[in-house]
Amino acid sequence: MQRIGVLTSGGDASGMNSCIRAVVRKAIYHGLEVIGIRRGYSGFIDADMGPMNLSSVADIIGRGGTILHTARSERFMTREGRAMAMENVERFGIQGLVVIGGDGSFTGASIFYQEHGIPVICVPGTIDNDIAGTDYTIGFDTAVNNVVDAINKIRDTATSHERTFVIEVMGRNSGNIALAAGLAGGAESILIPEIPFNVEDICKKLLNGIKRGKLHSVILVAEGAASGLEIGKKIKELTGFDTKVTILGHLQRGGSPTAFDRILAARLGAKAVELLMAGETNKMVGIRAGEIVATDLTEVLGKPSPINKEMYDLARILSI
Amino acid sequence: MQRIGVLTSGGDASGMNSCIRAVVRKAIYHGLEVIGIRRGYSGFIDADMGPMNLSSVADIIGRGGTILHTARSERFMTREGRAMAMENVERFGIQGLVVIGGDGSFTGASIFYQEHGIPVICVPGTIDNDIAGTDYTIGFDTAVNNVVDAINKIRDTATSHERTFVIEVMGRNSGNIALAAGLAGGAESILIPEIPFNVEDICKKLLNGIKRGKLHSVILVAEGAASGLEIGKKIKELTGFDTKVTILGHLQRGGSPTAFDRILAARLGAKAVELLMAGETNKMVGIRAGEIVATDLTEVLGKPSPINKEMYDLARILSI
Amino acid sequence: MQRIGVLTSGGDASGMNSCIRAVVRKAIYHGLEVIGIRRGYSGFIDADMGPMNLSSVADIIGRGGTILHTARSERFMTREGRAMAMENVERFGIQGLVVIGGDGSFTGASIFYQEHGIPVICVPGTIDNDIAGTDYTIGFDTAVNNVVDAINKIRDTATSHERTFVIEVMGRNSGNIALAAGLAGGAESILIPEIPFNVEDICKKLLNGIKRGKLHSVILVAEGAASGLEIGKKIKELTGFDTKVTILGHLQRGGSPTAFDRILAARLGAKAVELLMAGETNKMVGIRAGEIVATDLTEVLGKPSPINKEMYDLARILSI
Amino acid sequence: MQRIGVLTSGGDASGMNSCIRAVVRKAIYHGLEVIGIRRGYSGFIDADMGPMNLSSVADIIGRGGTILHTARSERFMTREGRAMAMENVERFGIQGLVVIGGDGSFTGASIFYQEHGIPVICVPGTIDNDIAGTDYTIGFDTAVNNVVDAINKIRDTATSHERTFVIEVMGRNSGNIALAAGLAGGAESILIPEIPFNVEDICKKLLNGIKRGKLHSVILVAEGAASGLEIGKKIKELTGFDTKVTILGHLQRGGSPTAFDRILAARLGAKAVELLMAGETNKMVGIRAGEIVATDLTEVLGKPSPINKEMYDLARILSI
Repeated sequence: MQRIGVLTSGGDASGMNSCIRAVVRKAIYHGLEVIGIRRGYSGFIDADMGPMNLSSVADIIGRGGTILHTARSERFMTREGRAMAMENVERFGIQGLVVIGGDGSFTGASIFYQEHGIPVICVPGTIDNDIAGTDYTIGFDTAVNNVVDAINKIRDTATSHERTFVIEVMGRNSGNIALAAGLAGGAESILIPEIPFNVEDICKKLLNGIKRGKLHSVILVAEGAASGLEIGKKIKELTGFDTKVTILGHLQRGGSPTAFDRILAARLGAKAVELLMAGETNKMVGIRAGEIVATDLTEVLGKPSPINKEMYDLARILSI
Repeated sequence: MQRIGVLTSGGDASGMNSCIRAVVRKAIYHGLEVIGIRRGYSGFIDADMGPMNLSSVADIIGRGGTILHTARSERFMTREGRAMAMENVERFGIQGLVVIGGDGSFTGASIFYQEHGIPVICVPGTIDNDIAGTDYTIGFDTAVNNVVDAINKIRDTATSHERTFVIEVMGRNSGNIALAAGLAGGAESILIPEIPFNVEDICKKLLNGIKRGKLHSVILVAEGAASGLEIGKKIKELTGFDTKVTILGHLQRGGSPTAFDRILAARLGAKAVELLMAGETNKMVGIRAGEIVATDLTEVLGKPSPINKEMYDLARILSI
Repeated sequence: MQRIGVLTSGGDASGMNSCIRAVVRKAIYHGLEVIGIRRGYSGFIDADMGPMNLSSVADIIGRGGTILHTARSERFMTREGRAMAMENVERFGIQGLVVIGGDGSFTGASIFYQEHGIPVICVPGTIDNDIAGTDYTIGFDTAVNNVVDAINKIRDTATSHERTFVIEVMGRNSGNIALAAGLAGGAESILIPEIPFNVEDICKKLLNGIKRGKLHSVILVAEGAASGLEIGKKIKELTGFDTKVTILGHLQRGGSPTAFDRILAARLGAKAVELLMAGETNKMVGIRAGEIVATDLTEVLGKPSPINKEMYDLARILSI
Repeated sequence: MQRIGVLTSGGDASGMNSCIRAVVRKAIYHGLEVIGIRRGYSGFIDADMGPMNLSSVADIIGRGGTILHTARSERFMTREGRAMAMENVERFGIQGLVVIGGDGSFTGASIFYQEHGIPVICVPGTIDNDIAGTDYTIGFDTAVNNVVDAINKIRDTATSHERTFVIEVMGRNSGNIALAAGLAGGAESILIPEIPFNVEDICKKLLNGIKRGKLHSVILVAEGAASGLEIGKKIKELTGFDTKVTILGHLQRGGSPTAFDRILAARLGAKAVELLMAGETNKMVGIRAGEIVATDLTEVLGKPSPINKEMYDLARILSI
């Protein structure tokens, strides 16, 4: 192994830059060369790539997003697109590939490996924390802190006006952000796609709270569980409360990564390089029980990543 | 003057607590007693009020929102409602009133004074910074920093994905937040109610930027100028760019106040007490040219508070 | 079990309030009563304690420090002091005790249990993360983020002036904060008590960096490894570089807890109550491999909590 | 005027980058060329300079420090040094110079203009806010918010342990940072070089506070007023209180600039370019009463910039 490629793919996640930095420096430390591939698989196909050195990754450890940019690529889902990418692999002398992204990106990497035999190691970088084989994904901790920060600010208004606030957060298929941020932010109710709910129960809880003197409430809704606007409307109908809705949107992704995400990203990125050097392929690095481990992609792709039911129950108990 | 009342009214603004603290402590320092009135004019009518002392305002200097809570009151717009409030003035022995809020709250205060003769001093507390007679209102600086912080985070994603983002911020009648945050955050275009715009020009600018290699853009829209969703839709239609929209909503108001808002709030609150002690009434305290000054409410109510045209032009120049 | 006591002891750590909230609410949820003991063992001896209810812990989830206050108590190290505390146990009808603190506090709790038979469950709350039996202690993640935030700010000056900065961080016996913050903040060297170092090597690395064009450096020193001032002086002597020193001090402890610390604190606090209800005693709750577990205090007290050598080596590699 | 130079000099201040960005973009907008001079007067002498374009200043609006770097230069204080700089002025075709820095940097600029006739416009960039002719300097607002943030964190520990904390902040000749941060942070006492104090009075106030139930105190000391360590020692001697000292040091300077500093920097930088284009020289731009104005350097250099006595008295009143 003398030269590796690295790319970021899918939705951006804070900490991807720390991971790129780790991949580049770890590789250079061991005498490898690194090709940075821009715009994910799209740039991989279009040869939008070039060599990276120590100073390519200077001062990026604390910056959100990804300096390699990212994109979704329809073409890489086709055999022709992947064949074009393989031409670039040969042209640039790439002998192994690090793919930082989510489930969809890993699927592409795995097919690419199977078709062309080029070793691939995947690194979980997605704010949703919904990938099997790792306890945490890069960007999740930052996203959760972003949401908690927003809850804090909104609660100031909720308290001052004695209002109910519905906050819709990211998570199409996963309630992880809503659950963690709701527990950390003391949300009165948390709605996630993994667990059925009905608005009547939420309203009952709100009314009980009012009876006990609780003057404001925050209800967190994962976008995959329901529409924040609809939940707000229903609560207003059923309780008559002045209910406001905020959809947090894209500000959840960005910002300087937390220390946790930076450290996780550094450890995972370095491990990915080690695995390529050891001749491994078709694996994802992850953190399990505090240890950095590798898992075969066949055990990752399409596998469920269940929410922590203990945390869900705890959030319910603590918000009485 | 032996006993004064203080209330917060209208939308909450960060720094209101610092102002309440200043009113209470300044008054006590001069031997006055303070009655805190909860829920704005609503609590004023309902006698939701009671004495405050030094420890009532301990540890609130850094907290967003208002510990006195706030509300909108239809009843105070009626002669009957105000008469009920006047009964509470007599019952609690209040000899002067400090009203922290915005234009609507000041109108109520002014009518109350005219009908019942109780001295009132108003303090401008609103995130919009749209009140005549003061260069800054309490809460504006914090709101602008909140928006800039959100722009920073969203720009990480805009850059990573090379997208155009439309961000809708508060300001029904005023573009002040959009203008200040847009200049501070380096927004490519700023749409405010005070200045006409057309989406074609914005798109032209976006396309010129693309030609020069600019890969992402942030367009800030004050809610009073246009709907962020509609602007986003039109840009997409006209340019074909992947355009995303975020509506920042209520997180703009809250959070721990900036140093600027805390200091402004302290100075204005203390001045309000001084004015009441000096026998003044029907005035608003404000900061003008760095000095804390009093302005007759007749020169404040309904008067325009124009935007800073120099800053608007500058924002346009710097975003080339 | 009908009534439990809770206290915080030793140095304050951000997240202690989230833990107190969890203990109180979890206990009330299960029908228990809670006595809050103020000022740690000192208040335990002096009967500085009283009942807590749901509203005692409202709005504290996001506040640093501990609303129960904390103190070091010489008297509780004596048999007489502990006997006085036992009198209060009886007087207030306490049947089980939750102690949130560090190693020293746990020793006191253990002796108290052995002498008086009152069940005690300990919760690790200390910024140092140096307690056996748990992967993380409450307050560590917040402290590390505080340090990283400070490194970011100082690096702005280091870069602008092309200077070397030595930053001394907390950690008398443990390099955990220095190591995590150094890795997350991209420190060029990290000095910790667990691993020998010599200043000559650090200077050699600095000089190599200069040769490669590196114009600024940050060296992180755990207070238990060396004096920041002395390290700075030696570097200046050996290299002639303009070297500045900052001792971060107490600002490392405080601030609103991170989401990670809030969630950890909630889970540990709730588990402590569960253990008391299950008749357990003389145990510490902790998080191991993502699971909340209980460990006998005999396996915790005085046991080493080694640093993560992989992370130390990684920090060295990534700072080339 | 076809080509201008820009440099930053003296201690770095957050917002300098926003100012450089404004100078560059405003100049380019008007068809001028810009030469960026690195390392202040030192690089000016050594020809460490080169052309800047729109992308030189992309993405720097939110970054602390200065991308042009800064340095102190003994050589520029000599006629020979300045003659060498003049050679570079001719070599690079510079027809006007923007100097961003403090009092010392302005003196150098003024002498340079007098000796060599090259037009200079100065921009006040220093965290101390101690320059005559402007109400605010770039970097002051950010520094004050940094200190307030530190006070908040330290107060968590002060409260939890019921301790007195002495915090030493920057300000060798000026108490502006201490005064603003002390008023905003609710410090119990503020010691500044402009106003005499004695430690006995501070201790009396502390003891009075204790009597009234105040359990913790924060005393802010400007480094020019006294040594924090000595003040802490004396307070401990006189009161017996557990008194801790923190010297904030260099973290006060850095960090992403506040919205206020970014806007101020943009407006001042743009105005500097306008003045050069209008044929002006030997002036400083500043903000006075909200307006951007120019002042002759003769009215700036060595002139006192008194503290705001009203704010000092207010801080005292509010900390009762």
